[in-house]
Amino acid sequence: MAESMTSAVGTPLSSAEIAEQVVGVAEGDSVMIDGVADLASATASQASFVVAGASAKRVTEALESQAGLLFADADVELGGRPCIRVENPALAAALLSQLFHPWSPESGIHPTAFVHPSAVLKEGVSVGPHCTISADVHVGAGTSLAAGVVLEQGVQLGKACVVESNTVIGSNGFGFVWSGKRHERVPQTGTVVIGDRVFIGAGTTIDRGTYGPTVIGDGCILDNQVQIGHNCQLGRFVVLCAQVGLSGSTVVGDGAVFGGKASTTGHLTIGAGARLAGAAVATKDIPAGLTVGGYPAWDLRKELKAQARLRKDL
Amino acid sequence: MAESMTSAVGTPLSSAEIAEQVVGVAEGDSVMIDGVADLASATASQASFVVAGASAKRVTEALESQAGLLFADADVELGGRPCIRVENPALAAALLSQLFHPWSPESGIHPTAFVHPSAVLKEGVSVGPHCTISADVHVGAGTSLAAGVVLEQGVQLGKACVVESNTVIGSNGFGFVWSGKRHERVPQTGTVVIGDRVFIGAGTTIDRGTYGPTVIGDGCILDNQVQIGHNCQLGRFVVLCAQVGLSGSTVVGDGAVFGGKASTTGHLTIGAGARLAGAAVATKDIPAGLTVGGYPAWDLRKELKAQARLRKDL
Amino acid sequence: MAESMTSAVGTPLSSAEIAEQVVGVAEGDSVMIDGVADLASATASQASFVVAGASAKRVTEALESQAGLLFADADVELGGRPCIRVENPALAAALLSQLFHPWSPESGIHPTAFVHPSAVLKEGVSVGPHCTISADVHVGAGTSLAAGVVLEQGVQLGKACVVESNTVIGSNGFGFVWSGKRHERVPQTGTVVIGDRVFIGAGTTIDRGTYGPTVIGDGCILDNQVQIGHNCQLGRFVVLCAQVGLSGSTVVGDGAVFGGKASTTGHLTIGAGARLAGAAVATKDIPAGLTVGGYPAWDLRKELKAQARLRKDL
Repeated sequence: MAESMTSAVGTPLSSAEIAEQVVGVAEGDSVMIDGVADLASATASQASFVVAGASAKRVTEALESQAGLLFADADVELGGRPCIRVENPALAAALLSQLFHPWSPESGIHPTAFVHPSAVLKEGVSVGPHCTISADVHVGAGTSLAAGVVLEQGVQLGKACVVESNTVIGSNGFGFVWSGKRHERVPQTGTVVIGDRVFIGAGTTIDRGTYGPTVIGDGCILDNQVQIGHNCQLGRFVVLCAQVGLSGSTVVGDGAVFGGKASTTGHLTIGAGARLAGAAVATKDIPAGLTVGGYPAWDLRKELKAQARLRKDL
Repeated sequence: MAESMTSAVGTPLSSAEIAEQVVGVAEGDSVMIDGVADLASATASQASFVVAGASAKRVTEALESQAGLLFADADVELGGRPCIRVENPALAAALLSQLFHPWSPESGIHPTAFVHPSAVLKEGVSVGPHCTISADVHVGAGTSLAAGVVLEQGVQLGKACVVESNTVIGSNGFGFVWSGKRHERVPQTGTVVIGDRVFIGAGTTIDRGTYGPTVIGDGCILDNQVQIGHNCQLGRFVVLCAQVGLSGSTVVGDGAVFGGKASTTGHLTIGAGARLAGAAVATKDIPAGLTVGGYPAWDLRKELKAQARLRKDL
Repeated sequence: MAESMTSAVGTPLSSAEIAEQVVGVAEGDSVMIDGVADLASATASQASFVVAGASAKRVTEALESQAGLLFADADVELGGRPCIRVENPALAAALLSQLFHPWSPESGIHPTAFVHPSAVLKEGVSVGPHCTISADVHVGAGTSLAAGVVLEQGVQLGKACVVESNTVIGSNGFGFVWSGKRHERVPQTGTVVIGDRVFIGAGTTIDRGTYGPTVIGDGCILDNQVQIGHNCQLGRFVVLCAQVGLSGSTVVGDGAVFGGKASTTGHLTIGAGARLAGAAVATKDIPAGLTVGGYPAWDLRKELKAQARLRKDL
């Protein structure tokens, strides 16, 4: 269930009020603003923004925009147009848009959802149509589940999380041992523990732990169709773009970023702040802070040099 | 919900009737046909086909087939067997199979589906079990949704579309700005607009736009587990094979084709008729009509040469 | 629906009883054990294991573990600690864990599931919340479906299978022929036939056949977000890790193993026991028993040599 947007659009704000809200400095004529949009589509009653360090082309785009108000940093020359100077214009635009569009899913449990009697749902939880909340699940205050979300037995979700539609949390992971005759099941006796303010996109799957829990730290953001194997341990504020796949028992440090379709083989440690380029495949530990790419994943600058060398004179 | 096939199987047709239907020329004895199958499994009452430009091996397979009728182009020697000469035998077989198996999902709204009272469903729409149709959704005439499909708030679907099971359209996309302390949500205020006669496979996810809409043009076909980021703009007749991933704001021209698992990084333009090989990763714009592969994606012929050079003498 | 674990945890077993169960030899003091865990988290009442051929580091970890009982092969020196000698310690631990955690989903059909009256469900089948069982489906004895699983028309599932949540079996595959004006649908008239003891993870999609069936043999194990195109034919005990994609009509021999995100282009044969490394893309047939990697996939040892050569001196 998407947030209810129409009703959230509120009273216009003046540029002075906006400057106060985003801790910036207003320049130019005072204007009334009732929304946020991108440069190309913004109207006279909407704000837009020029990202910090924008190219000349982007600045020209800003000057040609119909936006009534622009967020920009101190370095951008805007010819006297109404603007608000801030360090991080994209952030200011996001915060303003949040004021106009507060997160407001319909509260309560949709009548088509199934909630096991032993599940605990704290205040302000929103459970959308056709969700399944299994036994012994705990959902923290203010967390919202869109449609068709499945929380398997014993899953623990923190406060103010958002889970988009048809995502599965706590499925039995891929634990088997070949007996010589068949693949014997390793019972998946662990669970999944998710922190506060975690965002999980649509169609994502997160397996329960084999023995202990699979853990997702506070403030992580996971895009659509991400796959998290059993017993992964994610720190805080980790970013996993769409279609990322983490093998079982991957440990990911705070603030690491995985580009789309990046993946790991089993039992690796990805250091804090490390970055994997799109489609990179980590086959060994990645040091904190390093940006890697390719298969096997290594220093991205070297990967790009290697590709350039390979492609020379073709 | 799969189409109801058994009831659709109808009266046999003569080879002359079939030739008329597919605008071809019948040769050989007249036969009665009641179905279509591949060369290996076709029986005496079924038609099959030899693709245009088939290899000698494939022609032998056709001669050995039990099929009662063959579609073939003028160049294939079939030894006097009953056949229908057409330019595009695969197309003729498909059109004949459509006659025997018209698209006929059960009409109406399944009692387990949830349809918000503000949603508009035109005539002949089919909504399968456990679907969720949110507020302000519009579904065009004759469109069918299989089971567990989620249409989030405000999604617009055209006429005669098919959406397979557990697909999500209109989820909140991956819009966040790092504040220095946490990932701040960028409200996703746009929606998704899908044209007519679009096919969307199972388990696919299509994000709503951040400000304006995400757009899928008429006649596009998307396979299973495809991921479309916020604000992508697809032209007409675009083909996205399984597990393709498009980053936010990707623009795709008419008739472009993405092989399985191909992907784009953000904000690129893929020209009309461009083709991405399986698993290709586009990191910059792709010109119209070009076939590309590799990472970063470039001319596929060069990519294959580069791989050959890399592998030489190993 | 995860298996009900709490109720399954049973009476402790003595090391002698355990040795008998797993056909091993008990050494050291007799101990009572009531569970299985990994080396790091196991307590005095739990068993753990040292994998065959473990590194010195892993053996040290075992010696430092709090586990009350260890499974190990004959070669590992464990300083007189209570242990059970077996050939395959990981297998013994799995079998013991199965004793403590028998597979025991809630039996019967959840009241929120939809089961078509023409579907046949044999004894002991478990159908979780919001599942959709379409017309003419057959589900073998003891098979369990978690939540939101969709079985499309005519799908045949064998005995003792497990299907995790939100998986779709029998969707219409990606069969289209370009007419010069639009993509014409090839009716997907086949079905899906799945053997006994097959495990299918969450969010996986398996397309029905175009003419004949898509086939998954006995004992195959498929992880989450796997995609199987129309008319694939999998032998027995095939292993497909997460996010694998098989194009239409891929034939896979017994015991072949696909690493995460590995994929095939259409109509290939992957020989029995072949192994594809993670993210490998097979573009031609793979001989039985060969381990391959890269794009196009070839001998993995050569691929790693090629990558090493490419990266030299960078």
